[in-house]
Amino acid sequence: MLKNKKETKTEDKKDLKAEIKKLRCEMDLLPPKLREAGLPVMVLIEGWSASGKGTLIKNLISEIDPRFFYVSHGIPQRESDRRYPFMYPYASALPEKGKLTFYESGWMYEAVHKIVGREISEDTWDKWVRSVNQFERQLRDNGYLLLKIFIDIDKKEQYKHLSALRSDPETAWRATDTDLWQNEMYDCFAENYEKFMKQTSEYEKWHVINGHSREQANRDVLRLLIDKINTALEKGRYSGKPFDEDFPLVSMPKLSEVDLSPTISDKDYDKELKRLQNKLSIQHNIIYRKKIPVILCYEGWDAAGKGGNIRRVVYPLDPRGFEVQPIASPEPHEKARHYLWRFWTRLQRSGHVTVFDRTWYGRVMVERIEGFCTEKEWKRAYNEINEFERDLTEWGAVVLKFWIHIDPETQLERFTARQNTPEKRWKITEEDWRNRDKWAEYETAVNDMLKKTCTKNAPWYIIESNDKKYARIKTLKIITEAIDKAIKQKI
Amino acid sequence: MLKNKKETKTEDKKDLKAEIKKLRCEMDLLPPKLREAGLPVMVLIEGWSASGKGTLIKNLISEIDPRFFYVSHGIPQRESDRRYPFMYPYASALPEKGKLTFYESGWMYEAVHKIVGREISEDTWDKWVRSVNQFERQLRDNGYLLLKIFIDIDKKEQYKHLSALRSDPETAWRATDTDLWQNEMYDCFAENYEKFMKQTSEYEKWHVINGHSREQANRDVLRLLIDKINTALEKGRYSGKPFDEDFPLVSMPKLSEVDLSPTISDKDYDKELKRLQNKLSIQHNIIYRKKIPVILCYEGWDAAGKGGNIRRVVYPLDPRGFEVQPIASPEPHEKARHYLWRFWTRLQRSGHVTVFDRTWYGRVMVERIEGFCTEKEWKRAYNEINEFERDLTEWGAVVLKFWIHIDPETQLERFTARQNTPEKRWKITEEDWRNRDKWAEYETAVNDMLKKTCTKNAPWYIIESNDKKYARIKTLKIITEAIDKAIKQKI
Repeated sequence: MLKNKKETKTEDKKDLKAEIKKLRCEMDLLPPKLREAGLPVMVLIEGWSASGKGTLIKNLISEIDPRFFYVSHGIPQRESDRRYPFMYPYASALPEKGKLTFYESGWMYEAVHKIVGREISEDTWDKWVRSVNQFERQLRDNGYLLLKIFIDIDKKEQYKHLSALRSDPETAWRATDTDLWQNEMYDCFAENYEKFMKQTSEYEKWHVINGHSREQANRDVLRLLIDKINTALEKGRYSGKPFDEDFPLVSMPKLSEVDLSPTISDKDYDKELKRLQNKLSIQHNIIYRKKIPVILCYEGWDAAGKGGNIRRVVYPLDPRGFEVQPIASPEPHEKARHYLWRFWTRLQRSGHVTVFDRTWYGRVMVERIEGFCTEKEWKRAYNEINEFERDLTEWGAVVLKFWIHIDPETQLERFTARQNTPEKRWKITEEDWRNRDKWAEYETAVNDMLKKTCTKNAPWYIIESNDKKYARIKTLKIITEAIDKAIKQKI
Repeated sequence: MLKNKKETKTEDKKDLKAEIKKLRCEMDLLPPKLREAGLPVMVLIEGWSASGKGTLIKNLISEIDPRFFYVSHGIPQRESDRRYPFMYPYASALPEKGKLTFYESGWMYEAVHKIVGREISEDTWDKWVRSVNQFERQLRDNGYLLLKIFIDIDKKEQYKHLSALRSDPETAWRATDTDLWQNEMYDCFAENYEKFMKQTSEYEKWHVINGHSREQANRDVLRLLIDKINTALEKGRYSGKPFDEDFPLVSMPKLSEVDLSPTISDKDYDKELKRLQNKLSIQHNIIYRKKIPVILCYEGWDAAGKGGNIRRVVYPLDPRGFEVQPIASPEPHEKARHYLWRFWTRLQRSGHVTVFDRTWYGRVMVERIEGFCTEKEWKRAYNEINEFERDLTEWGAVVLKFWIHIDPETQLERFTARQNTPEKRWKITEEDWRNRDKWAEYETAVNDMLKKTCTKNAPWYIIESNDKKYARIKTLKIITEAIDKAIKQKI
């Protein structure tokens, strides 16, 4: 229960000031240690409007070298900003290793305001809560330190602060209608804040801070933050045990069982290609208007024909409404964050088609095989990826994943042909040959991946691509059928 | 004069198809060559609404591997998106070396629509035209290839296309009110398109393409693009001669002439700090509401006290309304673009304060001294930077640049003190000592920089920082005075 009252007895002012001064000196010393340990820290400051969250953050950051922190105030204000998955703005603001992000309100603010304002259903609330919990667990497992604060003041105190803001023409604009509405609906908000805290304490607990004395609140938060960081620095970064939720999986054949003989005649190909591209072009108009996001994921053997396949799929699309995201090895600022971060930030607004030419599945393929992450990490990734994709499909996205498949003989033929064609030689590198030598290892990894991540909501499709034309038609069919289904569901 | 009419005689369809096919094969071979040459290509497709720009781009990109291009459709639609300098969305979309960006409308669309709609004055138009010209020259000088296309159709033809779109419920939404208004005001638009083309042909000429036959237009643009790229690949990247516009400069003393003895007493410091921070805090509210952008640029010797100075300046600011941008060496995706790109993309919306902890002046200091760019490049940079800053101040920004200054003896003292204080040792690196050895070279570079870039609109201030407290007060005074002035001008 939130029950912080204005305290009758306040602490000795002088002692408090001295303590804050001491804590500030301690805080000042932490960033270089964070950097050395590569520890990323997230501080979420939630609480009542006009409870002094802004000032609190101001005080916290004043002790930190600006090179070490960000402040995120990314709560979507307008409906047009809300065209991404629920956790998108918060995941996009993840700090790099060794840095801090302060969230001035965040996922609690948004969920509670929308449920009180009846903008979302109970069902959506439940889904958001689940997204929050999985987000917080994933952060913990991937070595992030998260501190969650709620600044509590009572209804009277809030009213007093809001009135003070409104009485001065210089600050009146800072007490918004939403803030006043919150004061009116104080009890209802309190109930939902509590509910949210209760439901999101599984991986990281909430700290309710009495906000009636701003100096005391300041001291309390500083103390908490310093303690938390010191503990994390001492006991090292947390690396979670595998967590496996029961996702509804579709069973997949092993790659070796796939019959690669299907072909299509040139005549049928031309006819079908035209028909399906026309269909997709019309569908693109509809999903754009209905704001349905479509996410197409391509993985496959080198030279399997991913590029050509993608080109046929995007050809009928309006260039204003799609984006192809080619995924190479991560850049330094990407490596310094959760491995899914660079995919979160590459999502397009609802209504757009995003094609990933290679994907987050690199985690359980190349990163696994080349040892770019630990065994613990890639084993945990299957579940993390399933959760990520559930966030996408609950947002309303059509998520389709294609494994473009060929046999080693066909690959060798194509490699050789590329090698012998001057204008195609750039497409083939030493690395391709090295990867080819690891065919067996990749096959094991791909089989594991197909088995563990072919969920009902975001299924895999093995695309037989010894005949590239057959592969293109099959892909287009799957895409157009899935979009048809999504359009019908969203009438 | 725009005067493309529907042609009575159209070309032989079969020949045209064959030619397009041939051109497509040629186009297919270009991207790897672009990559090898590190040539970035920008294709701006402007033209009448419903003239087929979208389809044209669709056809162009269908021949290109998606890893090699972006499509930009970044024209700000809402007033809230227009809180950046005019060229911001276009500069932000610059391609990397070896890649192409297709702009589906851009700087011409925006300027012409706003002048016809009387949203901007003639004066703003002139400024925008100047920004466009300097942008295009800077791109050329920095090795970008830019192709500017205008797709022309007559009033009747436009009306026909718009009516066709509107008659089908599936496509009706694509003929917007703006499009219909353009058709009504056809002559006025034509006049302003022509004017814009005439005024922006200095560095890169416009190509008007007859859009009545879409196939012919397609062929014409493909041909143009291939020709342009081949020519650029043959003659190598352009590296411009120094272009020096006459900026109104403020004369600056040489560093050696600066008296570093000023100090402040602790008592005066405490009093002044409090007073000025209070003032800045109030000002921050006002600039936020009046949407005045403030850009504070910090450069200075290592250990001069930049960090502490910045902390005192941002302390009174609301964390929701400022951002500190620490600038380190560029990351690979930044190095692959115009050196100002990573500053363009770091600008905050109007009403926000952006503090750059080190800046674009790295070009004429460290890059000059360490040979990270050629002499030609850093010599050209003074003018390019002055132009960039003029774009900022014409957008309405307060731009202040601080050189935080100490003498070599003070630096040595501080270096030694850091070395001897365990918790501050991380602040001092081998590189700091190496830079110290190059003091004389840096002094020359700084003197040149102060002399050539202290413009009236974006002045430099030398901040005597042997006494750090004196330096902080002086900086705060300059900032609050400049903001006062800006607020008064924007009543």
